[in-house]
Parts: sequence; structure tokens; C-alpha cells
Amino acid sequence: MKQIKNYIDNHKDRFLYELFDLIRIPSISAFADRKEDMLRAANSLKESLLAAGADRAVVMETTGLPVVFGEKLVDSSLPTVLVYGHYDVQPVEPLEQWKSPPFEPEIREEKIYARGADDDKGQLFMHVKAFEIMEKTNTLTCNVKFMIEGEEEIGSPSLKAFCRKHKSLLKSDVILISDTTMIAQDTPSITVGLRGLSYLEVEVTGPNRDLHSGLYGGAVGNPANILAKMIASLTDENNRITIPGFYDDVREVTEQERAKMAGAPFNLDTYKKALDIDDVMGEKGYSTTERTGIRPSLDVNGIWSGYTGEGAKTVLPSKAHAKISMRLVPDQDSKKVDERFIDHFKSIAPPGVKVEVRSLHGGQGYVTPIDFPAYRAAEKAIEQSFGKKPIPVRSGGSIPIVSDFEEVLGVKSILMGFGLDSDAIHSPNENYPLFNFYKGIETIPLFYKYFSEEMR
Amino acid sequence: MKQIKNYIDNHKDRFLYELFDLIRIPSISAFADRKEDMLRAANSLKESLLAAGADRAVVMETTGLPVVFGEKLVDSSLPTVLVYGHYDVQPVEPLEQWKSPPFEPEIREEKIYARGADDDKGQLFMHVKAFEIMEKTNTLTCNVKFMIEGEEEIGSPSLKAFCRKHKSLLKSDVILISDTTMIAQDTPSITVGLRGLSYLEVEVTGPNRDLHSGLYGGAVGNPANILAKMIASLTDENNRITIPGFYDDVREVTEQERAKMAGAPFNLDTYKKALDIDDVMGEKGYSTTERTGIRPSLDVNGIWSGYTGEGAKTVLPSKAHAKISMRLVPDQDSKKVDERFIDHFKSIAPPGVKVEVRSLHGGQGYVTPIDFPAYRAAEKAIEQSFGKKPIPVRSGGSIPIVSDFEEVLGVKSILMGFGLDSDAIHSPNENYPLFNFYKGIETIPLFYKYFSEEMR
Repeated sequence: MKQIKNYIDNHKDRFLYELFDLIRIPSISAFADRKEDMLRAANSLKESLLAAGADRAVVMETTGLPVVFGEKLVDSSLPTVLVYGHYDVQPVEPLEQWKSPPFEPEIREEKIYARGADDDKGQLFMHVKAFEIMEKTNTLTCNVKFMIEGEEEIGSPSLKAFCRKHKSLLKSDVILISDTTMIAQDTPSITVGLRGLSYLEVEVTGPNRDLHSGLYGGAVGNPANILAKMIASLTDENNRITIPGFYDDVREVTEQERAKMAGAPFNLDTYKKALDIDDVMGEKGYSTTERTGIRPSLDVNGIWSGYTGEGAKTVLPSKAHAKISMRLVPDQDSKKVDERFIDHFKSIAPPGVKVEVRSLHGGQGYVTPIDFPAYRAAEKAIEQSFGKKPIPVRSGGSIPIVSDFEEVLGVKSILMGFGLDSDAIHSPNENYPLFNFYKGIETIPLFYKYFSEEMR
Repeated sequence: MKQIKNYIDNHKDRFLYELFDLIRIPSISAFADRKEDMLRAANSLKESLLAAGADRAVVMETTGLPVVFGEKLVDSSLPTVLVYGHYDVQPVEPLEQWKSPPFEPEIREEKIYARGADDDKGQLFMHVKAFEIMEKTNTLTCNVKFMIEGEEEIGSPSLKAFCRKHKSLLKSDVILISDTTMIAQDTPSITVGLRGLSYLEVEVTGPNRDLHSGLYGGAVGNPANILAKMIASLTDENNRITIPGFYDDVREVTEQERAKMAGAPFNLDTYKKALDIDDVMGEKGYSTTERTGIRPSLDVNGIWSGYTGEGAKTVLPSKAHAKISMRLVPDQDSKKVDERFIDHFKSIAPPGVKVEVRSLHGGQGYVTPIDFPAYRAAEKAIEQSFGKKPIPVRSGGSIPIVSDFEEVLGVKSILMGFGLDSDAIHSPNENYPLFNFYKGIETIPLFYKYFSEEMR
């Protein structure tokens, strides 16, 4: 422990600057024209793994963007940890809301500000550095494999097939992932539940061209008004989703479990204040943490139609668009939800418009057991480094690939995330506290230690 | 008549090229940075009026963009016609839908394609050329004044004050305006009613930053979902507007008048086919022509929120915006409607969001009597040039300043428009048929002739 802390202290600045180099590569997977940046990011990680002491590290082809694979095999009798992470990041719009450029990392108030500072370059890089430490201090007690993909933010379209193809290469005893949050620096937690996702884009087409809203307004169905009505009808007055059959497969959580979850520290006033909102809003009959943890949701992620520039343009638009996503809980199936959404959305369109819907992204929900070796190892590691036993919580986010890992590789994942809700991932001014970065690097070797003990 | 037709034939091409020079100036009033182009357009018209034979023409200051004033005083015993038009045009977005660049006029299939080809550069320029013809052929039977503004497309914010200030300069017997449409080339009509306008912009603010839709979705009010619900609630299942008191001042049209209007030629199948829609949509109990002619309407002219780029970004947006306008009918007051809208829209916001609403643009509706000299003169002129008596119709559009003219100058307007609904004004590929352009130039001198006879 002392040895690890010393190593971190001696290489503190280098760790940070190496991370900055990775962050500077604008590896946005959503944009098809960023292939070169994606390759640069992948190669940079390959080099980092080799420098840290990997036996080998390679950039491997997939049907989409490449996967970085690296490994260090210490002894076949030791358990194997497969670290999963992703080198791709979210788009940065709206750019004008960033206080510093998203791909020029900057430290302000002890936090790294940049796209990817937390999600997932910052969290992933802790694993690379923790591996380096264990390697250089001869304290590695497990075999290690790394699988780092470049398509997480667009729904990991190629990774399931990649896992199928390279099943034996990826053989491991647990998949270790840092791509989630903990409650607070003084309230560590481990994510034991993730929501699934159905993400769709809809297009409503009315007249074949933009019309003058004076000459036609009131007589021709306006796609923007109609899209608003269609979206509005997707949730009822209790904020329940109205798509027929939507709740059929939702696994209800027992009163006993709900009571237990309610024990996790949560302050509604602090929450509202941090977001500067007068009140929260969600499904009737559930608390805020339940609304994100155990209940599905439906959000408009983007909407656009007509004239959005300066001043007044009196147009009746020809088309209206929206990106709409649903977070799913066990045992909802994202493909089934996609189908239900598409059928329902088309069925509610009035005769004056044509509707197209396409699925952009999806994945299943996931629940981690709290009585398996990896959970116990993570619990002990965090308790030792943070000085407090972590609380198991269900997160509202999604890492769709986690349920695929279990299905294809037959291996469970442990979500040992060090992010905070205030890190503004997917938003302008994404950040990651230096405290969490270094604390993560300190915690990971402890996980390996306790995991090898648990598996003995 | 023969003399006029000959003059047109001899100067056909020049008329067109002069109009093209005016169109090439991108005088979009909605953009504050286009001042220079606005001045260029105003000066170009001043020169055109002088070249056509005006005694004087000047570019006059207003509190906003300048007004071009020109006049030719023939004899104080003759009646005076004040021609009103505007040199500003609408924005051109979405640019990618234009088949040829909006400010490079092009003739295809006997139509001029360009922004402003009809609205209002094309229609206005017919008056300049008709004036030239009467001047050069010594057939001018009225005094003529021109008042050409540069702010019509943004609601003429300075013109009312300008009229007040220059009341005696603008003294006239009728205001002649070509800024409206007729039913078809073989079915001429005169617009006798215009709708008023209330145009507002709304902003709904939820959390203080864009959030991750997984971590917060379902627990925090999403401004895009909420804006959709708020907009959806503005109209009911019969497509009636739900703002309290909205219909209080709507002047109901008698069954007798409605029966008379129903006589105007209108083919619903042709209408639907031209717009490529399966069905029309509007207030229950009214026909399509009534819905735009005698009934108010509410349209979303633009809406935007969240991520609108390529791919899937799982964001719960901080803000959502919309531009919403209402077309008004006599005796609705646009200021009163603005206030009602603002009060109502704020009142329906749920506690999780803050709402701001600002009025962008407005104006009163207008009805022209069909038993006054200018209407009779226009009727005779059109009957002679088109070979068919024009039908009086109520248009759905708005020229807010028309009711101000009556209020401030005490003069009625005649809306002798030569546009067609298919001209796509305010839309990509705005166009104006050459037939209408030349037919308009031919008709205008006849109006002067019959108007001076009517006023004798």
C-alpha cells in the first residue's frame, strides 16, 4: 500500500500529462469523418499499455472502429481480470457553453476540465497507470487483459461480434469497468444496476416544402405542432409512459428492497440546488433515486424544426425531427421496446403527415449480484482506500455492452466507477476531480489483491 | 392599352435585368449585420425611381432601416396614388433546399427563381416599371408617390412612426400595394382581408446545464419534453386554440357571407396534391379557405433543443426554444393576444422549469371594403387585362402595416397582388412567373386610369 502510494507521488505529474495527451485526441465516435482521430487514440493506448509493461498490445480490427487489446499473463494459476473501457467520447456541442476548449484539458479548482476527462478516458487511464504501478513494483497478483473499444458512445455496434470472435482471447474471471459514478468523495458507492437504452430518431413530414404560415396556417397540419402533440402524448399526467405494453416486462422491485435502497444517503434539497431547479419531476409514486435507479424513463434528447435563427420567419415547416430515448430496466428488452415505440409512434400520427422512425442505439439493463467475489473485492478495496464501506446503488445510466458480456463471454462485470454526478459527462465542461483520479489509481491495485485472495 | 403593351414588348428584357440587379442584393432584414445591403437596395430603388421619371426620390431615415420615398406630382387636381412596397426579404434557410442560389436569379420554366422574386421585389418592381411606362408614354392620370420600406419581414417596427412624422408628405387618396396573391393566372382575385399576427419566442429552462439522460432521465423535468407538452396543450382536439379569451374578439362571419365565400373556386384535391399531403387539418367546422381566411391559427415556426447533430447523444437538455406565431382576424388585437399568450404560457409551465416569452413581431388584421373607388378601379383593370372579373378573397397572410396606414394616414389600401400561392414565398425556391410579372405591369396603368375616372 505504502509502495503504491509512493509510486503515485513520484509519478503524479507524468500520469496527468500522459492522460492529457490522450484527451487531446478528439475521438468522437458519432462523427463518421473522425476515423483518423479514432485510430490515433487507439494507437496511443496501445503504446501506453506496452510502456506500462504489457506482454503484448495490439489494435484489432472489428466491423467498425478498432479495439485495443493488451495483456500481461503472470501465471496461469492466477485469476484473470479483463479491464474494459472505451477511448471514444461524446460530441461537444453546444461548444459556446464550454469555459475552456473541450480538447485542451485544463485544471481549475483541482479538477481536469475536458471532454473525456471522466467518460471514459480519465477513468480508463487509471487502470493503465494502476497496471504500470503493479508491474513496476512487482505486486501484480492476477493476469490482466485490456479490451478498449471506440464505439461505446454510439452503442457498441461491433463489440458483441468481436467478443464472439475472440472468445478464448478474452477468457477471464471478471470484467472490471470504471465508467460509472460514486455518490460522493466521502460516500463511496458501487453501481450494481444499469438501465438499458432504446434511442430512436423520428421524422415527421407534412407539406412537401416549407410554407408561408399566413397563407397556409390553420389549414395544413404543421409537423412541428404535430410532433409536439405526439411527444406530449408519450407520457401521461403521472409521467408514466403511454406506449402500449411498455411496462409489461418491467421487473417490479419489492417493498423490502425499496426500503433498503431508501437508506442510501440522498438530499433532495442539495440535488435541486445543484441543478438550480425548483422541483424534481418524474413518475408518480417513486422517489428521485428510484426514478433513475429502478424505473424506466423517456427523454427527448434533441428536437428541431423550422426556423431557428435570429428574428421572426413566418414559416410553416415541411419537416420536424426529434431524437427520443428511453432508459430501460430489467427485464425490458431494448429491441422489443424499439418495435413497440415504432409501432405506437406511427399509429398516433394524424393523416396530414408521414412519419419515419429509426433506431439509433440500444442495449439491455444489467444487475450485478453483491455476493460474488469481485463485488466483495471491490468493496474491500474501496473501504481501505476511501476509509468507508461503499454503498451498492442502482445507476440510471446504461453501458449496453455489460449484459452482452455476460451473454457472450459468460463473465460477470464489476462496475467500480470513480466519477461523480457533478462531472458533467456528456455535457459542456465535463470534468474529473484530481482527487478521484489519483484515488482510483490507488484503489485498483487493492482490488487485484483482494480479488486474487477471494479466488484462491 | 396598345401603347402600353408595345412599350412592355420593347423593354421586356431590360425590365427583367433591372429586377435581377435588385434581387442580387441580399437585403435580409432579420439579420442585424446586413445594414450595408439594406442601404444598397434602398439606393438602387431610389435610382430606379429617378430613372423612371420621378420628380424626386430620396432615401429617408427612420428609427430603423431607411424608407425610399419618391414622387411625381402631375397636377394637384388629380387624385394621388401612394404605392407601398418593401425592399427587404426573408432569410433563405434551409439553403440546401434551393435548386439555384437564392440571390442569383435564374429563369426556369418561365419563372424567376430567387429570394424576393415575388415577395416583394418582383411585385414592387412592376410598379416602378408601370410608372416608367405611364411617364414615358404621357399617360399618367394620377399623382404618384412611392413609400418603400426595409422592415416588412420583421414587422415594420419603424414605419408607423415614420408615417406619423411625414403625414403631409404621404398625403394620398389610396394606398396601392402588390404584396399578395391571386387564385390563379386564369382566376384573378383581389385580397380584401388580411390576418393579423402575433409572433413570439419562448424559452423553457430546466436544469442549469445539459445533463446525462441516463443519470437524470425520469427524475428531472426535461425542457424539451415539457415544451412539447406546453405547445401540444395550446390547441385542443378540434384544433381550437386554448388560450383563455383568445376567441373573445374574433368577428364571426355571417352564414350568408360564408356561403358567398364558398363560391370562390377551390379544389381540395388539387390543393392536397400540390402540397403532397393526404389530408388537410384545421379548426373543426370550417372549410380550408375559411381556416386561412376568416379564422385565427397558431403555428410553431421553429423549435430547437438538445442535440441535433449526427448520431445519438444521450443528453437531457438544459433549455428548449420555440418560435410560435398566431394569425389573427378582425377584431383581434395583436398586443392583447401577445399578453394573453404570455400569461397563459407562463401559467401552464410545471414547477421544474422557468419560462421566458418575448414578443418578436405583430400587427392587426384588415378588411378592405369592396364598394370604394379603388376596389372598383382594380376590379376593372384586372378584368380588362386578364379578361375575367376578379374574385374578392380573404387571405391568410398578414401585412401588419395596412391597418396602421388607415389609423395614422386615414387612407385605405387596395391589395392588388399578382403573386400565386405556388410562388413559395418565405420558402426555398421562391419564384415568380414571368406571365404574372408582365401582366402586372400591364394592369397597373389601367388601375390609374380607372381610379382617376372613379375619383372624378
